[in-house]
Amino acid sequence: MKTDIEIARSVRMKPVTEVARQLGIAPDDLELYGKYKAKVPLSYIDREKRKNAKLILVSAISPTPAGEGKTTVSIGLSQALNRIGKRSCVVLREPSLGPVFGLKGGATGGGLSQVLPMEDINLHFTGDFAAIEKAHNLLAALIDNNIQSKTRSLGLDPRTISWKRVMDMNDRSLRHIVAGLGGTASGVPRETGFDITAASEVMAILCLATSIADLKRRLGNIFVGFTYDKKPVYARDLHAEGAMAALLKDAIKPNLVQTLEGTPALIHGGPFANIAQGTNTVVATEMSLSLTDYTVTEAGFGFDLGAEKFLDIKCRAAGLSPNAVVLVATVRALKYHGGQPLKELKTPDVEALERGIVNLQKHIENIGLFGLSPVVAINKFATDSDEELQFIRDYCTMRGVPCAVADVWGQGGAGTEELAGLVAETADHCCPQFKPLYPLDEPVTRKVETIAKNIYGAEAVDYTPKAKNALKRIADLGLDALAICMAKTQKSLSDNPALLGRPKDFVITVRDIEIAAGAGFLIPITGEIMRMPGLPEEPAAEHIDIDDEGNLSGLF
Amino acid sequence: MKTDIEIARSVRMKPVTEVARQLGIAPDDLELYGKYKAKVPLSYIDREKRKNAKLILVSAISPTPAGEGKTTVSIGLSQALNRIGKRSCVVLREPSLGPVFGLKGGATGGGLSQVLPMEDINLHFTGDFAAIEKAHNLLAALIDNNIQSKTRSLGLDPRTISWKRVMDMNDRSLRHIVAGLGGTASGVPRETGFDITAASEVMAILCLATSIADLKRRLGNIFVGFTYDKKPVYARDLHAEGAMAALLKDAIKPNLVQTLEGTPALIHGGPFANIAQGTNTVVATEMSLSLTDYTVTEAGFGFDLGAEKFLDIKCRAAGLSPNAVVLVATVRALKYHGGQPLKELKTPDVEALERGIVNLQKHIENIGLFGLSPVVAINKFATDSDEELQFIRDYCTMRGVPCAVADVWGQGGAGTEELAGLVAETADHCCPQFKPLYPLDEPVTRKVETIAKNIYGAEAVDYTPKAKNALKRIADLGLDALAICMAKTQKSLSDNPALLGRPKDFVITVRDIEIAAGAGFLIPITGEIMRMPGLPEEPAAEHIDIDDEGNLSGLF
Repeated sequence: MKTDIEIARSVRMKPVTEVARQLGIAPDDLELYGKYKAKVPLSYIDREKRKNAKLILVSAISPTPAGEGKTTVSIGLSQALNRIGKRSCVVLREPSLGPVFGLKGGATGGGLSQVLPMEDINLHFTGDFAAIEKAHNLLAALIDNNIQSKTRSLGLDPRTISWKRVMDMNDRSLRHIVAGLGGTASGVPRETGFDITAASEVMAILCLATSIADLKRRLGNIFVGFTYDKKPVYARDLHAEGAMAALLKDAIKPNLVQTLEGTPALIHGGPFANIAQGTNTVVATEMSLSLTDYTVTEAGFGFDLGAEKFLDIKCRAAGLSPNAVVLVATVRALKYHGGQPLKELKTPDVEALERGIVNLQKHIENIGLFGLSPVVAINKFATDSDEELQFIRDYCTMRGVPCAVADVWGQGGAGTEELAGLVAETADHCCPQFKPLYPLDEPVTRKVETIAKNIYGAEAVDYTPKAKNALKRIADLGLDALAICMAKTQKSLSDNPALLGRPKDFVITVRDIEIAAGAGFLIPITGEIMRMPGLPEEPAAEHIDIDDEGNLSGLF
Repeated sequence: MKTDIEIARSVRMKPVTEVARQLGIAPDDLELYGKYKAKVPLSYIDREKRKNAKLILVSAISPTPAGEGKTTVSIGLSQALNRIGKRSCVVLREPSLGPVFGLKGGATGGGLSQVLPMEDINLHFTGDFAAIEKAHNLLAALIDNNIQSKTRSLGLDPRTISWKRVMDMNDRSLRHIVAGLGGTASGVPRETGFDITAASEVMAILCLATSIADLKRRLGNIFVGFTYDKKPVYARDLHAEGAMAALLKDAIKPNLVQTLEGTPALIHGGPFANIAQGTNTVVATEMSLSLTDYTVTEAGFGFDLGAEKFLDIKCRAAGLSPNAVVLVATVRALKYHGGQPLKELKTPDVEALERGIVNLQKHIENIGLFGLSPVVAINKFATDSDEELQFIRDYCTMRGVPCAVADVWGQGGAGTEELAGLVAETADHCCPQFKPLYPLDEPVTRKVETIAKNIYGAEAVDYTPKAKNALKRIADLGLDALAICMAKTQKSLSDNPALLGRPKDFVITVRDIEIAAGAGFLIPITGEIMRMPGLPEEPAAEHIDIDDEGNLSGLF
């Protein structure tokens, strides 16, 4: 069997100028990055035109460690829509190097549903992550430089600085550090740390910004810490937002590439809906809506994480509303939720499937809470038995939920046409404006409780003393009306990765709340979730290589 | 008077495909980064052809804090060579974001001698620095992950790890940190720190590598630290070199842009010859030699730093030899060396000039030590008096050193034709193979002494106890035969920034010696030089801005 990278390399790509032409973009307007990648100027966003296009959100059940293939289904679905005569573009998030070098590998789909050139997209792509990282860390350097300053000090209390640094790397040793050691010439010692770049507030700001002016305004609003006399300090007080925005001048433009079937793909914005907002950029979504009829986009991990944030944060802020929600499930994952061990998921077991289907059930119910209708997509694996597939189909049919099996990996668009037909029909006919889950003007604890109880199914929410202090700080700063961006494990509907299926009678523990005033949300950190991952015992990096001609291997 | 960025923006650039055509590069072989930047494949290096082309090295006297305009002279000289009918390409180093956001600003020349597009080159350019930073920090993450590992530990002693992390930022607070805090899940606590990316050994390796195979070999040879039973550990023991090289797959290709006069420029590799090797890449130099008749290249700071390393490290490793050495001097800097205060440098003062000319004298003598002949280029400022300029001309004439005044800033190539004529004549007629200053097989202390006494003019070299331990470690590892890459202030020929002119009777203090086994050199760290700079009281970043149309300001 061919690997993903072998399949990718066997395809003859179109020049990206030709992909652009399909979308009505003049080749001369592109900023090329090689022959197969390009940035598209924001002038291709047409906010009137985008209102008539259909937005399809692809989400998933609570995933197994390997993921449910949400990206692969999104790509396959968009390929299939184009096959059945519906002009479609898939809008994805950019991969993080953390998983590429860690455990999970790249994030460009798989098999016959991939975006190309996969090596480039999975490594530095067009440099957006590097630019975000640099803008973030420039603010950190300006903060520490101001603390060190003799003549221009704002009186920042180093113990109150909440702005950390970021690096796009799974590097657990940087989570908690003491910096500024080495004497008076090398800064003021203080506790700080690094998050992974996808979790940067600058990433969230880039994802939500609608223009350069909006980008700069949001960057200026980043909360930094307090002075010794308890006055809040924002990035604008350090005159940081101009240089930060300058660093992002290209990163704000969406990246155009192609799928394995030569259909257009916009890839822009960061992943990790467990520890960040984890949706692609507003401008990429709007651009696709402006240029095609059916935009297929994804939000990270299960519906409880990525999709909830996609709706309550991104769609609310940008005035978007999906016309269909695709819920990706696999036989394997549902059996895993039913108690079948990871190593045995290839063995048919309808009983485990029956026990695990409650996870799908809960996510279907959650979609309804936003006033939206689901389409279930079963991402087919070669080891799935007919009986197992039929069980899920029957389950959905009984509940009136459209459902299709899609062989996105093995057959690409050709294996996804049934799903594409269902999705197009749903999107064409069923398009109410979605209802956000909570109003912004409620108290923070009420908003968190609404998410925890209604979406996760929790009994209650508990706050550690540190989180309670954070609540008080947020109130003092007058930032109660921000949206909520939960940091929670993706492995369970609860904050405990071990609770599979549809857990009940559990309490969500908020151990801290970070402030992202520029992005416009608060980040309650639950359970043991970390905003800087670590590498596994045997990192994928050890198997990545390049030959003398520059060909990569071991990426997948 | 127009600023550099205003001048740059007033010029209509050629498409980079046209610049490539001038060099005989097929447009289809380019990897475009927008319309005006491109990467050129290594297949355009022709190692036979390059031997017939002339290599011109531009260096300088000990600079004032603002620099002597070495980059600007290099650009103006290459523009002028093309004007007088000599096919020339200028080969420069990529700017670091540290100075861009700090004090010094960009590094793309100035006035009518600039490389374009200056905003892009000064910010992320084609992502090379980001790729180098990522490759460097991937190794760091793999090291800490191995220390944390339960099943695959190499037994690395955390107290012996010499591999730090890097960030392209002036961030003094990261010089000395304790990482790995926060309990057993977050690594093992240990002292470490960050250098600026230009000082990364990966940068040096990229600058010296002649192919992907050579790159990988060198990356594998990076020395990491010792196991608890005192065995050395290299990057190859962590299987890091494949993934590191994969991250550098595009970074290893030289970047093609243009000068303000539309002549070709290759910009590739990192700056900072005070704390790093600080020369552009071997492959860019070789590519220019393969494609044009006169390659103008620069090495950082004074001849004592950049040029010594260019010759003893880069040229020796790559089998290159310059055909002419241009020594850039300014009236202002020579007066500064003669004791005139920084703020008064605009006032004519021939007596200060007479006192300061000894700095020029020493650098001229140093060029002779390599068996090479200098051409002095006086980089003209509007405030220079005729008497002052004549004084330097006379000084050179008396010593038989060709000398020309060049108005590179005010007139570009047109103001640099006299210099171009002298340089072309020198290069055409005077091309002995240079002699390295020291043989590699001498003891480390002997090699350091040779540089310190002969080039700097020191009386002796002193080693701190830490440096003596390092010498012993190097001997134990069998790495004595590596080249020497001094880390020393650029402000003085000595290791004390306050000693201007031509200091005498001073001792060079080596306080540590870092090992760069993959790059092939040892780094004696002298005086108080830091490999991670800090921001100034008022960082340039505060004045950088971007408007709604994406136009930058405040970069210069």
